[in-house]
Amino acid sequence: MKKVKVFITLKESVLDPQGQAVKESLHNMDYKNVNDVRIGKYIELEIEDSANLHQQIEELCDKMLANTVIENYRYEVLEEVQS
Amino acid sequence: MKKVKVFITLKESVLDPQGQAVKESLHNMDYKNVNDVRIGKYIELEIEDSANLHQQIEELCDKMLANTVIENYRYEVLEEVQS
Repeated sequence: MKKVKVFITLKESVLDPQGQAVKESLHNMDYKNVNDVRIGKYIELEIEDSANLHQQIEELCDKMLANTVIENYRYEVLEEVQS
Repeated sequence: MKKVKVFITLKESVLDPQGQAVKESLHNMDYKNVNDVRIGKYIELEIEDSANLHQQIEELCDKMLANTVIENYRYEVLEEVQS
């Protein structure tokens, strides 16, 4: 069993209204030195190991976890975890 | 200017219905070797450097970004980015 961490972020060119709202709230709370906020997703998977694990993870991300029109993703595979 | 990456995850003991729904969808798509899915948030901040940067980041997370009753967070500060 492998643990996989997937990080999904909006592409640079895509507006992030949620991040803007958080930034404005932080400014209202007097944290005026926060210049930019971008909000993405962080997904942890536990997945049984297979020969084509990386290919499979990319399929999962492309088909289900990320919207590749507006989002980028990257992932890390951690060593064996106890099942 | 520092770039800060914040990872927010649900505590182990907290149910994750969104993750469960994703897991079931993945099983329906025949990815049956995915045993667990947990969904969290990934936030990128750009923040002007200050003497008490770490203290400030923890305040931001505690007050605004994370709900510490049900969520854990960790963060990484990256080196200077060009503003």
